[in-house]
Amino acid sequence: MENRVTLEMIREASEALRDVAEITPIVTSTRLGRNLYIKSENLQKTGSFKIRGAFNKLRMLSQEEASRGVIACSAGNHAQGVALSATRLGIKSVICMPEGAPILKVEATRGYGAEVVLVPGIYDDAAAEAERLSHEESYTFAHPFNDPYVIAGQGTIGLEILEQVPDVEQIVVPIGGGGLISGVAVAVKSMRPNVKVIGVQAATVPSMFVSHRSGHITTVKDGPTIADGIHVLTPGDLTFDLVENYVDDIVTVSEDEIAAAIVALLEGPKTVAEGAGATSVAAYIFNRIDTSLKTVAIVSGGNVDITTLSRIITKGMQKTGRIVQITTKLTDKAGNLAHLLTCVAESGANVLDIAHEREDAKTEVNSCVVTMTLETRNNDHVRKLREDLVSHGYRLLD
Amino acid sequence: MENRVTLEMIREASEALRDVAEITPIVTSTRLGRNLYIKSENLQKTGSFKIRGAFNKLRMLSQEEASRGVIACSAGNHAQGVALSATRLGIKSVICMPEGAPILKVEATRGYGAEVVLVPGIYDDAAAEAERLSHEESYTFAHPFNDPYVIAGQGTIGLEILEQVPDVEQIVVPIGGGGLISGVAVAVKSMRPNVKVIGVQAATVPSMFVSHRSGHITTVKDGPTIADGIHVLTPGDLTFDLVENYVDDIVTVSEDEIAAAIVALLEGPKTVAEGAGATSVAAYIFNRIDTSLKTVAIVSGGNVDITTLSRIITKGMQKTGRIVQITTKLTDKAGNLAHLLTCVAESGANVLDIAHEREDAKTEVNSCVVTMTLETRNNDHVRKLREDLVSHGYRLLD
Repeated sequence: MENRVTLEMIREASEALRDVAEITPIVTSTRLGRNLYIKSENLQKTGSFKIRGAFNKLRMLSQEEASRGVIACSAGNHAQGVALSATRLGIKSVICMPEGAPILKVEATRGYGAEVVLVPGIYDDAAAEAERLSHEESYTFAHPFNDPYVIAGQGTIGLEILEQVPDVEQIVVPIGGGGLISGVAVAVKSMRPNVKVIGVQAATVPSMFVSHRSGHITTVKDGPTIADGIHVLTPGDLTFDLVENYVDDIVTVSEDEIAAAIVALLEGPKTVAEGAGATSVAAYIFNRIDTSLKTVAIVSGGNVDITTLSRIITKGMQKTGRIVQITTKLTDKAGNLAHLLTCVAESGANVLDIAHEREDAKTEVNSCVVTMTLETRNNDHVRKLREDLVSHGYRLLD
Repeated sequence: MENRVTLEMIREASEALRDVAEITPIVTSTRLGRNLYIKSENLQKTGSFKIRGAFNKLRMLSQEEASRGVIACSAGNHAQGVALSATRLGIKSVICMPEGAPILKVEATRGYGAEVVLVPGIYDDAAAEAERLSHEESYTFAHPFNDPYVIAGQGTIGLEILEQVPDVEQIVVPIGGGGLISGVAVAVKSMRPNVKVIGVQAATVPSMFVSHRSGHITTVKDGPTIADGIHVLTPGDLTFDLVENYVDDIVTVSEDEIAAAIVALLEGPKTVAEGAGATSVAAYIFNRIDTSLKTVAIVSGGNVDITTLSRIITKGMQKTGRIVQITTKLTDKAGNLAHLLTCVAESGANVLDIAHEREDAKTEVNSCVVTMTLETRNNDHVRKLREDLVSHGYRLLD
C-alpha cells in the first residue's frame, strides 16, 4: 500500500511545488499541426521536468534523513533536479556521474549546489559507487523514477495540462523509466478517464514498450539513441504496474524521426528540445498516434548538448528531405559540370556544397565523381529532382 | 505633421492588434544574467515583430486602396508580416523577392497568402520591380520601416514591456532601418522618460550608428552579417529623426558576438533567435551597455535558416571558448600522440575530433601535424590548456 500513487498525493505535490517549479507554457505552431499543443517542460527550471519529482521526494524526508543528505546517480536531468531541489530545501546533495559526462552537465550540477563525484567507468560504475556511498555515509538514495513521491511530483504536469487545455483528448508522454507517464496517467485518468494517455519510446531502447506487449518487466539489450534522457533498459516495478493500469498505448519512434522532430520544434515554435523531449512530437508528426484528436505532447526537456544539436539538425533535415546528398559520375569534359548544375537549378534545388573528385580508385581515367549537398523543399521534391536528373541521362550513385 | 508618431497612435495600434498579434512572453535565464529579461518577439506570429507594423499600416488603408492590393519587397520577416496581415484583412498582397531567396521563406510567404514574384538579380532588383509594379498596378507600397503607422505598430512592444516589467530601467533594441526602435522609444519615453532606450547594430553594417554619431543620415558601405534582418545600408529620414529625439545611445556588436548570443539563447532560455534578434542580447553579454541596470532585450525575430543555424552554433562556441582548435607538430614516433592526448585529458578537455597528417608540404619528413578540435569550458580554460601544452614542450601552430 505504501507504493500507491493517488490523485491526492499529486494535488499535494502541486501545492508544494508552487514556488519551486514553473507552470510551463503550452505553445502551438501551425507548422506542426493544428491539433498539436506542446507542454514545454524544456522551459522548466533546470531545463526538464525532473525538478518536480525530485523536490516532491526530498520535501518528504524526515529531519534526520534531511540532515544526513541525499545521493543520486545521473549524468543528466535527474542530477540537476536533485541538486536544485536539495539546495532549495537546505539539504546536502551528492551526485555520482560517470567520468566522461559532458563538462557542462557537471558544471551545471555543481552550479545548482551539489557535490559531484566523478566515477571512472560508465554509468553502471557510477550507480554502484552511489549505492556504496549511500550505505557508507547514510545518504538517502534519490531514485530517478521508481518512487511514489517522485511519480506524484511528475504527475503535477497532468493537472496543469487539464487546466491549460481543458478540451484535450489525448496526451503523449516520453517514457524512459516510466516516472513521468505514471504520474501524468494517474492524474489524468483519475479526473478525466476519457482522455487518452499514450507513451513514446525510442525504437532502439524499447524497454517499457516490450514489457507492455509481453505483460511482464523485460530488460532490453542496449542500443544507441540520441534520446539519452529516456535511455533506460529496465522499467521500474512500480512504474510498470501504473503503466499497465493507466496507460492506453505505447508507440516507438526512430532516431531519424526524433531528429526531425527536434528540427520541427526549432523551426515552428522556435524552441529547443532534447532527444527524449522530442519523441512525443515525433510520434505525432510521423502518425504513430491518432492525429485527429486534440493532442498535448509533453516536451520533457531541453538539455541537449549544443555540439550534438548541430549534428542532429543535419540528420533531421535529411529525414524530411530538406537536405539531400546526390552523387553522380561525369565524363571529365568542359561544360559537363555546368550542365549538371543547370539541371539541378531548374529543379529548384539550391547547392549548399559540391565536391568534384577527379582521382579516385573507383573512377575511370576520363571521368569524375560529383557529390552535391542540396537544399530541397521536402521528400517529394527530392524524388522529383532525382527523376529529373535520371531523365537527363545522369546515373545516380548512392 | 503627417509624419508624427504619437503615444496615442501606438495605443490605438495596440487595440487594433489585440486579436492579430501575440503579447509575447518575457523570459529569463540565470545563465544569461540576473538583470536580463528577454522580450520574445521570436515567438510572435510569423516569427518576428514585423506583423505589428505591417498590420497597423494595412488596417489604415482606404477601401479603395485596400481593393487594389499592396506590394512589398523583402526576402525575410517583412514579407511574412505583410502577407499574413493582408490575408487577415482580406487584401491582396504581392511580395517581390530576389530569385535566390531561401526556398522556405518563399514557401512561408506563399503560405500566409501572398503572391510571390521572384525577380532575377539581387535585393535592389526586386525593390525596383516592386516599385514598378506598384505604379503599373496601383498597389500601395508597404515600406518596411519608414512609415508612421508601421512605427506605431512596432511601438506596441514598448507598451507591453512597461506592463510586463514595470521596474525596467533599460531597453535594448536591434536597429536595421530603425522602425522598431523608433516606435518603442516613442512609447517608452512618452510614458517613462527615465527608462533608457539603447539601440544595437551589427558592427559590419552600422548605418544608424554612423548616422547618429555624424548627426546626419549616412549610407554605409555593404558588409557581411549573419544578422540579415537588420542589414540596411541607409536609415529612413523619419526613423532617423525619431532616433535622434528619443534614443539614448547606439552600440555595435561583432559577428562572433552575435553568434555567441544565439548559442547562449539556445542553451539558457532554450529559444531560437535569428542574428538580428540576438544582437540585443549580445550587447548585454559582451558589456556594451550598463549591465547593472534591470534590462529588457528585445529578441526581434527567430527566423534563422536551419542550415545556417548549425554553422552559427560552431562559430558561437568558438567565440566563448567552448570549442577550440589546437594545432601542434609532433615527431612521428610511437607514443608521441598518446602523450599529447594524455596532456589534453589532464587539462580537462574532451577531444571531439582529431586530424593527424603525415604528408604535408609544411612538415619535415619525420614529423607530423596534429589538429585537435576540443570541447572546453570557457576562454580561461582554453588559455590554461594552451599554457599546459606549452609547458610540456609542445609548440602550438596557430
